[in-house]
Amino acid sequence: MHTRPHAHSHPRPSEAPMSRQQRDALDALFRSVPRSEVPPAPAEQRAGFAAAITRPGPADVAVRRTVLGGRPALEFEPAGAPARGRLLYLHGGGYVIGSPDTHAGLVGELARRAGLPTTSVDYRLAPEHPFPAALDDGLAAYRELLATGTDPRALALAGDSAGGGLVIATLLAARDAGLPMPAAVAVFSPWVDLAVTGESVRSRKDADPLFVEADLHAYADHYLGADDRTHPLASPLYADLTGLPPLLVQVGTNELLLDDAVRLATRAVAADVEVTLEVGPGLPHVYQHHYGRLDEADAALDRTARFLTDRLDAARSDAVRSDVVG
Amino acid sequence: MHTRPHAHSHPRPSEAPMSRQQRDALDALFRSVPRSEVPPAPAEQRAGFAAAITRPGPADVAVRRTVLGGRPALEFEPAGAPARGRLLYLHGGGYVIGSPDTHAGLVGELARRAGLPTTSVDYRLAPEHPFPAALDDGLAAYRELLATGTDPRALALAGDSAGGGLVIATLLAARDAGLPMPAAVAVFSPWVDLAVTGESVRSRKDADPLFVEADLHAYADHYLGADDRTHPLASPLYADLTGLPPLLVQVGTNELLLDDAVRLATRAVAADVEVTLEVGPGLPHVYQHHYGRLDEADAALDRTARFLTDRLDAARSDAVRSDVVG
Repeated sequence: MHTRPHAHSHPRPSEAPMSRQQRDALDALFRSVPRSEVPPAPAEQRAGFAAAITRPGPADVAVRRTVLGGRPALEFEPAGAPARGRLLYLHGGGYVIGSPDTHAGLVGELARRAGLPTTSVDYRLAPEHPFPAALDDGLAAYRELLATGTDPRALALAGDSAGGGLVIATLLAARDAGLPMPAAVAVFSPWVDLAVTGESVRSRKDADPLFVEADLHAYADHYLGADDRTHPLASPLYADLTGLPPLLVQVGTNELLLDDAVRLATRAVAADVEVTLEVGPGLPHVYQHHYGRLDEADAALDRTARFLTDRLDAARSDAVRSDVVG
Repeated sequence: MHTRPHAHSHPRPSEAPMSRQQRDALDALFRSVPRSEVPPAPAEQRAGFAAAITRPGPADVAVRRTVLGGRPALEFEPAGAPARGRLLYLHGGGYVIGSPDTHAGLVGELARRAGLPTTSVDYRLAPEHPFPAALDDGLAAYRELLATGTDPRALALAGDSAGGGLVIATLLAARDAGLPMPAAVAVFSPWVDLAVTGESVRSRKDADPLFVEADLHAYADHYLGADDRTHPLASPLYADLTGLPPLLVQVGTNELLLDDAVRLATRAVAADVEVTLEVGPGLPHVYQHHYGRLDEADAALDRTARFLTDRLDAARSDAVRSDVVG
């Protein structure tokens, strides 16, 4: 067992003191958890992750179990949501851990703030189901939404961490299959480089309270086995991103995966994708989980909700104009 | 004289057709203007720029002439603006052309949407007044606002193109002089690399309807003469950006200067600055000028207004909490 050294945390000139207290408390909490020198077995990791992260969804969002693309899923229905669209969510957890249940709080909050009915899919996990099982499930979910009448212009996708990489890969697979793109996609701390080549893997080593580099390699081993770590549908950083819908990327700077987010945004810019990159200093991996106790998390979820609904509104208004014109 | 070849413009899968018509019309308008093979003399450029770009400010924003930091300035006062802060604006024009008058429409619109009284400074222009004259004027304006009682937590800065580089340089000079930072800074298509090394200078050559590389070198020659093109207070891309306040960067992909914006954001991330980068495909340099006839321009100004007022509100609320606590 070991605990992490604390990053040297100097207040920045323009920094908000209250939010810094919240960040420091969260950082100390993460660092107080004893860690094994080697990552535990998947079953143990899954139980630990579920215990650490699961929060109930908000009271005014109804949740029911359903099936989408042949996989179990959770369906979130915000009270009084106007019919402005639908969200498909893919949770994080290194392709090995996590589920719609562990992410019910985060996804329920996003559904509530965006006013969007949301389906969170329990895609198959590695190592029992290695690549491309998760991708097949993501694409099957997307296909079924379209096949059952969801207008792609009224659809958005979102995901965090490995789920963020998976939504990008799902869209690339959908594009290559000739399917239409949705109105928008948002990813929180996306993991898009399973080859683990980001400079931040080293430069943010002491700043990241949650991960060490070995964790990332272990997840990649489970998901990819002997497959190429730079396969563009496992590591979409290496894909041609042309044709992706408007993309929001949020990330903290206290993350090994900081450069995954920045490089994904940069690659998308090169492919002429509409990109919004939001980088929050001093924030940990998928800090959006900590809404209600970290101001930046609430603000980030609100901005994500606005990003998605703005793009859905624009797509709908354009659809109406096209119908009138054409 | 020559006109530019049109970029090959393919509709993207998720693209809004109406906004594409607007973008194409603007692009065609820009390309219809005959250009000299060599940049004209500054006086001619200034008159042409003023004729091409000047728009009146909005009716519900009062404008008066004032002086700030020893330089003439335009003061914009939105009707019924709540006292949530103040904006200092530095216009673009390659450090050679432009004025608060040419930018009265853009700045007035931003002041109106943000509800912020705004001062737009007529800093000295090159070649009559080379580097660091513009920087000295920017810093003098910032100093005078602080010296006359403006709380830096109630102050934001913004600028476009060369003015975007100049607001960053002004903040770095202020930081180095021990002055406090403002609550936020927003830049549109910032020019931060007068050495003109961005890959987009080549990769976006056909896409940019406004500039050729020689234009950038001519402006840099006027401003810097024989000085180092990578001086960090002339080309803040080469500066240590540590301590900058929350930074919003907006840019289009039809710009030679695309990479200036992306690299500024990336450098700021490395310095642990809070960064929001927004990249709009198919949009030209400082597309925000075209509010009212380009949907993306209106949306971008609205997002900028929200970014600035959100950060001003957070800084004020934190100031109140600090006063209560401390």
